[in-house]
Amino acid sequence: MKVTSHEKVDVLAMANHSINEKNADQQQKHQLKNEDATVSAYMSQCFISVSVADSVLSVKSNLIDQLEGEQIPTYLYVIDDEGYLNGILPVKVLLTVADDLFVSDIMRQSYFSVSPEQSRHDIYSLINHSGMDSVPVIHFGKLVGVLRPQDIAELIEDENTLDAHLQGATLPLNEPYLSTSPITLWRKRVGWLLLLFVAEAYTSAVLKAFEDQLEAAISLAFFIPLLIGTGGNSGTQITSTLVRAMALGEVSLRNLWAVLRKEVSTSFLVSVTISFAALIRAWILGVGIEVTIVVSLTIIAITVWSAIVSSIIPMVLKRFSIDPAVVSAPFIATFIDGTGLIIYFEIAKLVMTELA
Amino acid sequence: MKVTSHEKVDVLAMANHSINEKNADQQQKHQLKNEDATVSAYMSQCFISVSVADSVLSVKSNLIDQLEGEQIPTYLYVIDDEGYLNGILPVKVLLTVADDLFVSDIMRQSYFSVSPEQSRHDIYSLINHSGMDSVPVIHFGKLVGVLRPQDIAELIEDENTLDAHLQGATLPLNEPYLSTSPITLWRKRVGWLLLLFVAEAYTSAVLKAFEDQLEAAISLAFFIPLLIGTGGNSGTQITSTLVRAMALGEVSLRNLWAVLRKEVSTSFLVSVTISFAALIRAWILGVGIEVTIVVSLTIIAITVWSAIVSSIIPMVLKRFSIDPAVVSAPFIATFIDGTGLIIYFEIAKLVMTELA
Repeated sequence: MKVTSHEKVDVLAMANHSINEKNADQQQKHQLKNEDATVSAYMSQCFISVSVADSVLSVKSNLIDQLEGEQIPTYLYVIDDEGYLNGILPVKVLLTVADDLFVSDIMRQSYFSVSPEQSRHDIYSLINHSGMDSVPVIHFGKLVGVLRPQDIAELIEDENTLDAHLQGATLPLNEPYLSTSPITLWRKRVGWLLLLFVAEAYTSAVLKAFEDQLEAAISLAFFIPLLIGTGGNSGTQITSTLVRAMALGEVSLRNLWAVLRKEVSTSFLVSVTISFAALIRAWILGVGIEVTIVVSLTIIAITVWSAIVSSIIPMVLKRFSIDPAVVSAPFIATFIDGTGLIIYFEIAKLVMTELA
Repeated sequence: MKVTSHEKVDVLAMANHSINEKNADQQQKHQLKNEDATVSAYMSQCFISVSVADSVLSVKSNLIDQLEGEQIPTYLYVIDDEGYLNGILPVKVLLTVADDLFVSDIMRQSYFSVSPEQSRHDIYSLINHSGMDSVPVIHFGKLVGVLRPQDIAELIEDENTLDAHLQGATLPLNEPYLSTSPITLWRKRVGWLLLLFVAEAYTSAVLKAFEDQLEAAISLAFFIPLLIGTGGNSGTQITSTLVRAMALGEVSLRNLWAVLRKEVSTSFLVSVTISFAALIRAWILGVGIEVTIVVSLTIIAITVWSAIVSSIIPMVLKRFSIDPAVVSAPFIATFIDGTGLIIYFEIAKLVMTELA
């Protein structure tokens, strides 16, 4: 970004000023905007209201004085004495029509509106990509606020931040990262981590159940991290793509069958490629033909299994109104680790005659 | 979102129309907006230009006719015959001043501008949270386009989508998910997955190197997925928080020391908690006091090690101008898996006298 040479100092001062204002503003609002934030945490009281009985001339002549900042709003809001919204008035129309008309002659009575109690998550899917400029917030017919373009931008940004944190299996922070204490970070993280630990603890039981097979062919153990890691990674690729596509409104539950077909085909192509790499890897380690075959077959089975799980879970969660963003990489990895080990040892028992 | 009862059909038709327009628009632009997209892929030609010699009266009277859509721009752009930008003209000022003035009297000569070749990633950090409404795009002094509020919103959204895909260790899609073929998905995914597989293949070598220890105490194998999984998960929590904080401009390389101190303290608190759970888990499995101690100590060591790695890597990548969002959960998991196993078996050799 460049600043032209004229009045450089002024511009920087100006910029700093506006950044400080913005920070102060954010600080003030930050307490409210946790993961359950509703429209009321984002709406602004900075809107211009007029009455049906006002004349175009009087609205026009007062307009400039009422503007805060340099932006010119797209709409004025027509409310009555008790605060009920009667309609909206496009400023462009106001500037075009004759001065002797009244607001009631030119106001628009059809418009989108939202309620202050609607969740950020709902509004995100509705407003994002709609191209809407500003949206009135209405509570039992009364205008209680307006989502301005910058409020909408902030809401979308916060929802993206929430999703980013959920995808990392941690709770979102309510304050900037650098001012968050280790104790707070511990509280935000330890819940999910303990939950994942307890779920993953199941893998020890699985391995203990296959202790005899492990003792008979210790080289099977060499491939445990590689096999379950690959299963988790390929599942993560699918969920991160799907979760984002669902956030952008491109995919919903009615596409389940199409998604499943697409992901199973893709994962088969992927697994055959990786299986070839696994064959080479096992051959280099010199673990014998049987273990090599088991490892290659397991890669295919785990990758396809991982694709099925990773396609279905986010969509099913969405069905039960749970934010699919909670299906994070750690979530999928934990699920695949336990089930993948069972697949591995069952294939080993089938292929290796000494284990049967 | 509610639609008031009046003229319901019209509103919906209107909404559909605008959505179709938007889709057509997106389709057209989509080819350009891959991960290397620059400002030129987002800027618009929809701006109103005036000349320094124009009178306020003539600009005012032509303004309304030149508006596309209902939004009123915050600025007009003052350009000369050869297309050089001379200044910007706030519409609010235009509407306030006397008709007999000229553009040259009221235009502003200090403003922020960007270049069409700047990358989306750079612009994202600069513009996001700046509260800027629209930004002129200038190439060697000439005005070549404008980033309108909706263009800025689209740029920010695309950067968020890219980050979401990178965090899943997959390449971003250039078209909507449902219209992407399995072959394309395969191409987007297989590169990262193969790379991770090859990196993870190292774990087999590590385990083979500790084959004697494994044979002597097979129960050590039971905890492999649990230990490396927990290390990966706690690292993922850190990188997802850090990567987002860096994208929002809250954290940069000069905070490295503060981040490291914060994360090492936090991970110590976290690891002690999880270590207690590990102690209970190993005790339930009945693997003996020595393995139980090894598992509990390893959880602490791996979690703190994972915190160090996860704090440093994203910041170092940023230093080398690599988008830190590539440090995904699979990336961290792969790194921790191999090194975590070494930590595990070295601790085992220290604690368990029969392995020494």
